[in-house]
Amino acid sequence: MNGPPKSPETGQGPRVEEIPEGDDRLRLVCPDCGFIHYDNPKMVVGAVVRYGDRILLCRRAIAPRKGYWTLPAGYLELNEAPHEGAAREAWEEAYAKINIDSLLAVYSIPRLSQVQLIYRATLLDEDVKPGLESLAVGLFRWEEIPWPDIAFPTVHWALHHDRELGQTQVFEPRTNPPGSSDRP
Amino acid sequence: MNGPPKSPETGQGPRVEEIPEGDDRLRLVCPDCGFIHYDNPKMVVGAVVRYGDRILLCRRAIAPRKGYWTLPAGYLELNEAPHEGAAREAWEEAYAKINIDSLLAVYSIPRLSQVQLIYRATLLDEDVKPGLESLAVGLFRWEEIPWPDIAFPTVHWALHHDRELGQTQVFEPRTNPPGSSDRP
Repeated sequence: MNGPPKSPETGQGPRVEEIPEGDDRLRLVCPDCGFIHYDNPKMVVGAVVRYGDRILLCRRAIAPRKGYWTLPAGYLELNEAPHEGAAREAWEEAYAKINIDSLLAVYSIPRLSQVQLIYRATLLDEDVKPGLESLAVGLFRWEEIPWPDIAFPTVHWALHHDRELGQTQVFEPRTNPPGSSDRP
Repeated sequence: MNGPPKSPETGQGPRVEEIPEGDDRLRLVCPDCGFIHYDNPKMVVGAVVRYGDRILLCRRAIAPRKGYWTLPAGYLELNEAPHEGAAREAWEEAYAKINIDSLLAVYSIPRLSQVQLIYRATLLDEDVKPGLESLAVGLFRWEEIPWPDIAFPTVHWALHHDRELGQTQVFEPRTNPPGSSDRP
């Protein structure tokens, strides 16, 4: 996962707000070297990975929400297509070999400048195990999902959207549910 | 639109490739101030905007592909949902008031570390005019579209995908067409 700029912690790097020449928005500029930090929204890619009637979840080994359960997901890397990133994250977090089936949802969290592309996927081999960023991984039937220990609202959304769609093959990708604080 | 880091032009800012502690990929680090530049893929948001049987196109006033025709589209800004960004771009580039209808396509251009979310939208008011980044704007019937002067392959893809879908309301978002160099 890529982190945010390190300026707040170190007091270094781009830390002065200015509107650069030819621009129309405030950007962080480094007073030491003049570097302009063009910050952009970040894309998270992940998947609801199914193996029969069970769904793959990973228990987070890292902050935020360490110890809580999540879908395999993470930041899209440079030079990577979203579906490739989702498959990579499943491998990194759970050594899961998956087949991407369709785009389940596009969630947006403007507060965090984050857009999530969550796919539906099929697990090709039941043999999963924790990657470096997971304390544990598991395959859960719906009633076995550790609901009180789910890491993020978007994981709730994706699990419910996937279940509501059932066997539906052709559908419009879901978006933030009504009433969510970050409804698009 | 947000630009790339300015280091190559100025010789300043993050310009040394290092793997930061706790990371597993090369990042650009500034040797003067220690700032780590975590570069991420960028999201472009745009729309195929329809007014009856005509489609809104904008003639670019800026590089790249100045003078060529494109859909209203641009980089998603911080704290912005994708559908909001698409509506903002239509306004900025063509003073077009639009209603976002559905997600037409997710295109990825890994070579440019770019993901495009292109929506289908309806123009609410025929009164459009060029914004700062457009030399001209126009509403085109299919046979009137200036095909030789289209700015980018993704504009071709989106126009054809929109046409193929016709009146279809529920569909899986389209992706890069087969045989395209950046097929996901």
